Amino acid sequence: MNYRVPLQDIRFVMNELAGLEALLQLPGFEELSPDLVEAVLEENARFVEQAIAPLNRVGDTQPAQWADGAVKTSPGFKAAFGEFANGGWQGLLHEQSIGGQGLPKLVGASAGENLNAANLAFALCPLLTDGVIEALTAVGTEAQQQRYIPPMLQGRWTGTMNLTEPQAGSDLAQVATRAVRQDDGSYRLSGQKIFITYGEHDMAENIVHLVLARTPDAPKGVKGISLFIVPKFLVNDDGSTGARNDVWCASLEHKLGIHGSPTAVLLYGSGKGEVGEGAVGYLVGEENRGLEYMFIMMNAARFAVGIQGVAVSERALQHALEYARERLQGQALEGSDGPVAIVNHPDVQRMLMTMKALTEGARSLAYVAAAANDVSRHHPDQQERSRNKAMYEYLVPVVKGFSTELSVEVATLGLQVHGGMGFIEETGAAQYYRDARILPIYEGTTAIQANDFVGRKVLRDGGKVASQLAADMRATARQVDEAAAGAGQNADGLALIARQLDAATDAYEKATRYILEHARDGLRGVFTGSVPYLKLAGVAHAGWQMARASLACQAHTQKGDATGFHEQKFATCVFYAAYILPRAGALCASIVEGELANRYAASALAT
Amino acid sequence: MNYRVPLQDIRFVMNELAGLEALLQLPGFEELSPDLVEAVLEENARFVEQAIAPLNRVGDTQPAQWADGAVKTSPGFKAAFGEFANGGWQGLLHEQSIGGQGLPKLVGASAGENLNAANLAFALCPLLTDGVIEALTAVGTEAQQQRYIPPMLQGRWTGTMNLTEPQAGSDLAQVATRAVRQDDGSYRLSGQKIFITYGEHDMAENIVHLVLARTPDAPKGVKGISLFIVPKFLVNDDGSTGARNDVWCASLEHKLGIHGSPTAVLLYGSGKGEVGEGAVGYLVGEENRGLEYMFIMMNAARFAVGIQGVAVSERALQHALEYARERLQGQALEGSDGPVAIVNHPDVQRMLMTMKALTEGARSLAYVAAAANDVSRHHPDQQERSRNKAMYEYLVPVVKGFSTELSVEVATLGLQVHGGMGFIEETGAAQYYRDARILPIYEGTTAIQANDFVGRKVLRDGGKVASQLAADMRATARQVDEAAAGAGQNADGLALIARQLDAATDAYEKATRYILEHARDGLRGVFTGSVPYLKLAGVAHAGWQMARASLACQAHTQKGDATGFHEQKFATCVFYAAYILPRAGALCASIVEGELANRYAASALAT
Repeated sequence: MNYRVPLQDIRFVMNELAGLEALLQLPGFEELSPDLVEAVLEENARFVEQAIAPLNRVGDTQPAQWADGAVKTSPGFKAAFGEFANGGWQGLLHEQSIGGQGLPKLVGASAGENLNAANLAFALCPLLTDGVIEALTAVGTEAQQQRYIPPMLQGRWTGTMNLTEPQAGSDLAQVATRAVRQDDGSYRLSGQKIFITYGEHDMAENIVHLVLARTPDAPKGVKGISLFIVPKFLVNDDGSTGARNDVWCASLEHKLGIHGSPTAVLLYGSGKGEVGEGAVGYLVGEENRGLEYMFIMMNAARFAVGIQGVAVSERALQHALEYARERLQGQALEGSDGPVAIVNHPDVQRMLMTMKALTEGARSLAYVAAAANDVSRHHPDQQERSRNKAMYEYLVPVVKGFSTELSVEVATLGLQVHGGMGFIEETGAAQYYRDARILPIYEGTTAIQANDFVGRKVLRDGGKVASQLAADMRATARQVDEAAAGAGQNADGLALIARQLDAATDAYEKATRYILEHARDGLRGVFTGSVPYLKLAGVAHAGWQMARASLACQAHTQKGDATGFHEQKFATCVFYAAYILPRAGALCASIVEGELANRYAASALAT
Repeated sequence: MNYRVPLQDIRFVMNELAGLEALLQLPGFEELSPDLVEAVLEENARFVEQAIAPLNRVGDTQPAQWADGAVKTSPGFKAAFGEFANGGWQGLLHEQSIGGQGLPKLVGASAGENLNAANLAFALCPLLTDGVIEALTAVGTEAQQQRYIPPMLQGRWTGTMNLTEPQAGSDLAQVATRAVRQDDGSYRLSGQKIFITYGEHDMAENIVHLVLARTPDAPKGVKGISLFIVPKFLVNDDGSTGARNDVWCASLEHKLGIHGSPTAVLLYGSGKGEVGEGAVGYLVGEENRGLEYMFIMMNAARFAVGIQGVAVSERALQHALEYARERLQGQALEGSDGPVAIVNHPDVQRMLMTMKALTEGARSLAYVAAAANDVSRHHPDQQERSRNKAMYEYLVPVVKGFSTELSVEVATLGLQVHGGMGFIEETGAAQYYRDARILPIYEGTTAIQANDFVGRKVLRDGGKVASQLAADMRATARQVDEAAAGAGQNADGLALIARQLDAATDAYEKATRYILEHARDGLRGVFTGSVPYLKLAGVAHAGWQMARASLACQAHTQKGDATGFHEQKFATCVFYAAYILPRAGALCASIVEGELANRYAASALAT
């Protein structure tokens, strides 16, 4: 199938929910116009549809290959990355001061979604490069920035994040890679890193590895980790690449999905390079503050992975919808002369609408979060900045955890729509089911997101952001109620939305209260409920955005300029309220009952 | 990992929930004793653990291979099937009158679970053979029975079901394979069948295909389909195999999972055999009643696929639990000197307990259904027979739909427990995620089960079975309430179970009422809610069995003979009530709100 960027929905979410117009008035964005943003969106759509999307299946069936330490990417990937670089897409959302185009993160979110929907495995390379650029922009020296950032922005070099080691996955306290300071101020690194996405490949001239390692005298635990730049090829003073560094790809993983993305085992300091023994590395910032710096990169990457969830969902939806419109099977429920397209069957409609509601709900929440990030960096008012910063930071784990968990649900529904054909690899639906499955794992599992969410985003401020959001959701529910009054044919739909948004807000408030009240005396119960609570927040907040969307649609209906798109969108909002929002109540019940259940559970898992 | 049959839980469910002892008193089972059943269970466990389980990964990594119309199964499969045959396992639950061992379906359910947990792809071959034996037992002529059943019982031949054609998947009205009657009373078949599990292989001397086809003058639609026996090799009068019939395997499918199971495209009548043109087939029963006969086979197969759901869930659980106990990562929530096994982390416990609760809930419901089938065939009292028959028939689509849908959830949780390692194929967790995914599709998708459930099992009898079940659930909730009164340390756990079982019963009754009341004026809404309703029934009925289990555990506690197993089981029952039962309310809300949402939905899916 041909992937089509859902430009109508993207425009709607940007303009009607995320406040693009107001955003473009903020200092730093004055040179941007809605027309320019529109031109970027259209060009981006054209590019990903034509150059990137056709390679999605190629990457799956012809994975990257390792031989003698080198990695050959899937056919077509290298040329496509060249087009990506030439298009200037890597620089889209980076600051103009470092050579980027300085577009809002809101626009970057869309470009990211489109690239990932076109080809998740391909898009991972720029995604990680973005993170490296962001980290060096924030904490690199000017010399480091000048040396490494421009070639990455130009797509000549790429970047990686090196955190995981066999004994150190979610638990970075266990990082054991060693970094020994040399007389010239550089370091020599030795150790093994695993799960390094695009840790080795043939698409760029050089690779900038950002590596967590320990100096010999570092304290134990996460406060003894430092961050290093380790380029695959050392960089000469004129910016050209020099000696081959002592970092080598020992193998690639054989994965369930994202086959097109080479996942490398990297050996540092095996003595095989042109630099003697030990990989040459350069300290970023100060020693022992590596984890803090890496979080800059990880926060950007976590949001981006949330966007990947939206992306693969959108693609799975389009694939299933196309099939459902073509496949003739079974009589219509109301009777028909012969078989009808399965899109007419009630349960196929339920599955497709669930996919659509989840995808659009997740998109709207993620884009609203991106806009909050933009406001937090550009608004002239300090209070507005910090309010939006708190909101964005609250939403990052929700966007990451919720969008990725639901992408697995959307992909499995997409496969189900295909019936038996869904299980056949050639159909393509199974690829999304395999690809999406990594999203709730990497860049912090859903549990890691949920711990961050409960611990740092809800408990730390005593539920301040959470209660503001609850009030906002309640206010929206009232607006929807009011709109229902004179809404004619949409009245019962709006009433349903208000009713279910209220119920979900009740659940969100009750669960939040439970967490705040039990943090001292029932911490295990609270953290047993952390993933359900994150999911509840995602369901409720995305539902809130869908309720706002229904108001926007109704406003167009009242004005008389509603299009078919608005009618479809409104239907999706009603569906979200009926089929997705009720999950909030069930999740709340589990959270509240959870502590007691948990008291018994320990015995059930005993050996 | 080494798969271990969960004998303790199987014994508990059989004895304390499914009433094995009473079953063995019934006419036809008098020769069986609890000791004999125990011996069968233990021998079965030994056999599947040693001979079958080790081939699970082999089948995945070295799939069956097609060449020149012949299929070579995965290494070790042929020898293992020989052991299966020699052990007499194919005959376990078939009637003694035809040469089987005549054990209750309850015991067969356990043997089926064990074989499937050991190796889903391998177990499919006997599963389908069972269906063919059952169909011929019911509707074959005596000559057909004598000719085909004994070699299948002995494991020398195997059987297949041939329904699907490219244009006829869920919609069997579209079956186009032709069968033309010959002067000698036999038929010649021509056409193409797809998705034929073990449609060709090298594990047996002959394959008995049961094939749906149309005679030239047959009525259109499902009332013009007849059922034929088409043996791969014709059978001589002395039972030996003769000429190669004109049915050929054109290719095998490249599937997401169950790689060890060859899924064949079969061509009938290509003229390549030793019998001239057209596959020689023999009519089963009467012309045009084929679908009715095939349903005999399908009902057995649907129940068996439900058992497959339990099986793959149990295996995924064991795999994840073993990993969680070994993998050291992160400090304990309450503090620890170094990393602890991840089984100690709250969210890992939540995931493992969810897997355990779902698996054990599904097992208990399926086994109780199997026992109802046994009672329906063996009880001396006609009323008891028909009551149990209605109950079993009601439960078949629930067992199939609920157990298979949850197996995908259990498998994805198992993968998540492994973190990044779960995405690496060598870990093995991903195989369950891929294998389980076929279960909600084949032998009738979840939507097909739900249509059967709502249409034939709830609406047709005006909700009679459903309201009896609601009353039974309510009675159990009262018993649990009463037990809580004097239960000491288990009191709050029992109270939680009663509270949530009541809430789930409320939801089940409300949804049932909605369906009964709207069948006339809102059929589309009813069928939009059919899958949610089936899931609700599964959640609630399995929760009811878990509540009964908690009572049995509490009885042991009161008697003073409770073991560690009972303590674990009780904890799992509490967890089920806290984390799984609340889903019933959310599903009910969607069903009740669904009709309205559905009215809008049609527009959202318009092209």
